[in-house]
Amino acid sequence: MLFLVHMQVQIPHGTDAAFADALKAEEKAFSQKLQREGKWRHLWRVAGEYANYSVFDVESNDELHTLLTALPLFPFLKISVTPLAQHPSAIVPN
Amino acid sequence: MLFLVHMQVQIPHGTDAAFADALKAEEKAFSQKLQREGKWRHLWRVAGEYANYSVFDVESNDELHTLLTALPLFPFLKISVTPLAQHPSAIVPN
Amino acid sequence: MLFLVHMQVQIPHGTDAAFADALKAEEKAFSQKLQREGKWRHLWRVAGEYANYSVFDVESNDELHTLLTALPLFPFLKISVTPLAQHPSAIVPN
Amino acid sequence: MLFLVHMQVQIPHGTDAAFADALKAEEKAFSQKLQREGKWRHLWRVAGEYANYSVFDVESNDELHTLLTALPLFPFLKISVTPLAQHPSAIVPN
Amino acid sequence: MLFLVHMQVQIPHGTDAAFADALKAEEKAFSQKLQREGKWRHLWRVAGEYANYSVFDVESNDELHTLLTALPLFPFLKISVTPLAQHPSAIVPN
Amino acid sequence: MLFLVHMQVQIPHGTDAAFADALKAEEKAFSQKLQREGKWRHLWRVAGEYANYSVFDVESNDELHTLLTALPLFPFLKISVTPLAQHPSAIVPN
Amino acid sequence: MLFLVHMQVQIPHGTDAAFADALKAEEKAFSQKLQREGKWRHLWRVAGEYANYSVFDVESNDELHTLLTALPLFPFLKISVTPLAQHPSAIVPN
Amino acid sequence: MLFLVHMQVQIPHGTDAAFADALKAEEKAFSQKLQREGKWRHLWRVAGEYANYSVFDVESNDELHTLLTALPLFPFLKISVTPLAQHPSAIVPN
Amino acid sequence: MLFLVHMQVQIPHGTDAAFADALKAEEKAFSQKLQREGKWRHLWRVAGEYANYSVFDVESNDELHTLLTALPLFPFLKISVTPLAQHPSAIVPN
Amino acid sequence: MLFLVHMQVQIPHGTDAAFADALKAEEKAFSQKLQREGKWRHLWRVAGEYANYSVFDVESNDELHTLLTALPLFPFLKISVTPLAQHPSAIVPN
Repeated sequence: MLFLVHMQVQIPHGTDAAFADALKAEEKAFSQKLQREGKWRHLWRVAGEYANYSVFDVESNDELHTLLTALPLFPFLKISVTPLAQHPSAIVPN
Repeated sequence: MLFLVHMQVQIPHGTDAAFADALKAEEKAFSQKLQREGKWRHLWRVAGEYANYSVFDVESNDELHTLLTALPLFPFLKISVTPLAQHPSAIVPN
Repeated sequence: MLFLVHMQVQIPHGTDAAFADALKAEEKAFSQKLQREGKWRHLWRVAGEYANYSVFDVESNDELHTLLTALPLFPFLKISVTPLAQHPSAIVPN
Repeated sequence: MLFLVHMQVQIPHGTDAAFADALKAEEKAFSQKLQREGKWRHLWRVAGEYANYSVFDVESNDELHTLLTALPLFPFLKISVTPLAQHPSAIVPN
Repeated sequence: MLFLVHMQVQIPHGTDAAFADALKAEEKAFSQKLQREGKWRHLWRVAGEYANYSVFDVESNDELHTLLTALPLFPFLKISVTPLAQHPSAIVPN
Repeated sequence: MLFLVHMQVQIPHGTDAAFADALKAEEKAFSQKLQREGKWRHLWRVAGEYANYSVFDVESNDELHTLLTALPLFPFLKISVTPLAQHPSAIVPN
Repeated sequence: MLFLVHMQVQIPHGTDAAFADALKAEEKAFSQKLQREGKWRHLWRVAGEYANYSVFDVESNDELHTLLTALPLFPFLKISVTPLAQHPSAIVPN
Repeated sequence: MLFLVHMQVQIPHGTDAAFADALKAEEKAFSQKLQREGKWRHLWRVAGEYANYSVFDVESNDELHTLLTALPLFPFLKISVTPLAQHPSAIVPN
Repeated sequence: MLFLVHMQVQIPHGTDAAFADALKAEEKAFSQKLQREGKWRHLWRVAGEYANYSVFDVESNDELHTLLTALPLFPFLKISVTPLAQHPSAIVPN
Repeated sequence: MLFLVHMQVQIPHGTDAAFADALKAEEKAFSQKLQREGKWRHLWRVAGEYANYSVFDVESNDELHTLLTALPLFPFLKISVTPLAQHPSAIVPN
């Protein structure tokens, strides 16, 4: 079951750089683990912004919530979620 | 080069049903042709709405514009376009 | 799996009254069938508006989309969907 | 009498963690007390966000205001309230 | 129990004038009846607009909804409702 | 001459509590003085929010501005003003 | 007493041209009469739009409302009103 | 003196096609005349939309207004204007 | 050439009072100088807000930008600019 | 391939002045280098604001993103990007 997720990263100015770098490294590792597992199906950068559009493939709203709130950067993310359904003109199933 | 495209379909009440059905059939055929060619890489329905999120893979802004304005339903679409870049944490290239 | 659904009914002025009344009767019957089946778990009127907030309990985004687009009034509804997850402080499971 | 309440939790970065944890524990206890009393009829997490949608069952606007402002997290909540009425198609009374 | 209600009147251009005048006369009579009964406690015109702010004094959300949807102009009104509570600095009870 | 005034109180987290309490006490005293004088005709709490809707009865825009900017909490208020006129269906003069 | 008034003219496509022209001529005459009387103190076109910003000098909200609703184009205007007060740095009184 | 102008074309469904085509042809001719004269310095299509961003080079706000309202499609355009100034980092004068 | 300028003053809580007072005094002096020169033609307070609407009379966008950015309070202002043109019904030239 | 880019500069009050000045000097140098290379085709100041509208000419979304995130002021910029296509009435190619 697919969800489009829009994430904007908002780390306050003045955040300790080493702390932020460590969070970003953890975020990258966790993101890549989820991508390899097929949970985080797509990850694209929004051109010109510190933001991404992603597509998650999960079993339920609860699994989606668990994954998103487990992101190391979650406290610094502004997230909005759009549930996706099968489009009748799509040539592949979701 | 990828673009996220949000399309909302707004066919006025009272539009001739046969006319609308013909347009939708043409739209579906054209959409599936572009999907098979790899231009229209993803097509998802927004749950509960007569709308979709799509990802297009094109050579340029001009090619994107040409494709979108060639959609049979274009006069009835509210479209917004978000250019996408490679995300440094993505495990596959765009 | 629960979704909060906000529906605003927008039937154009000048719509044939008998046609509208028939649609509304079908809508009511279909809504009550879904409520009895447990799919449409809650249905509340927004005070002062021709609108409702509802909670649906479905297996997937696809099922939700299928139910909503099957509503007789669907062509006249402005719908927005919010996926709900289990709240850790709730004393009952969703 | 039912009200839909949307709460977004906005605790500033840098808030003392022990202080925040204590508030959250009090919030949970108070919320569960109100749920058991039937005042806080539903509590759902918004998927992907530190936010909830809730339904309160109270005698009056004043009782609703008293309960919401008594929440330990109230100073950190962005709240909006929607009064709900009986829907004529609902198969159960509010 | 008080509610602030904002009403914007939107009668489409081209509506039959006699029909509109009859509705407005019924609206005025009904409004004045509710004012005399104390249900419609205040009624003010928004300067420069075909709109009003009103305060209703009712027993419940359901009574408010019943009154508002009974307004002869209801199909032409854009309404938003704000529930009001006792302010601790007010020198009179609501 | 009446004005509807919407005030949202936004005191930053971390403001000295004694300072804030003193301001609020002054605000209450000043508000009640204006109410007794008939300048601040109505004062209602917005249910669930640290905000109010008020109606002021003043001689001019200048008097309104003078009163509002004299509020002890003024530096912490987000204010919007709506000028009100006599409604032709109101059974009492403004 | 001054008010800034923003007016956007929205005459539906298809309105009879002679009817619209007659209204505009009446509007112009009425506007110029009010300007000569000093009630409509300033009248500026918004560059590139069928809209204006105006400043009215009136005795009260009621007089403002009476003037604006007497405009021949009133049924086709989207109006918003901002009450103005004396600025302490202005070198002339309002 | 430069102005950024955003124009969205909104021709109602059902407009006579020959009429619309004639307007568009006149618009194109007029636009190209202004471009050749240097008044309409840039003209770009917004990808995926029936809209453009343009830069005009004119002597005054009045000249800009005269040009924009002379566009054959003006009654069907939603226009917003942003005045531009010399940027201190630009390597060419405006 | 006239421009309507909306300025909202947003000085952060905690700003040194003597510093702020000095800025405001400089702002007042500079504003009054520009008013006497005819550059800052009108200056009105928005009733109830720390904001103003002003009309500037300048030779060009560049002159407007130079004046506005020279305001002592400029770093604390949220500014929006609307270019004004001659209105055909105005009885005086701009 | 052209993109319209809107940048608003938001440097927090209290940022070290020497640090900010150094960033701005680097920004200017980098911007002028990109202008000379033809990547940053246009750069205009928005009159009255600490903001600009720019047009970039790049090979791809990725190149645009790389350039924008390399701006020394990037952490302090609020950016939005609009992809531009060839307009059929433009007398020059993009």
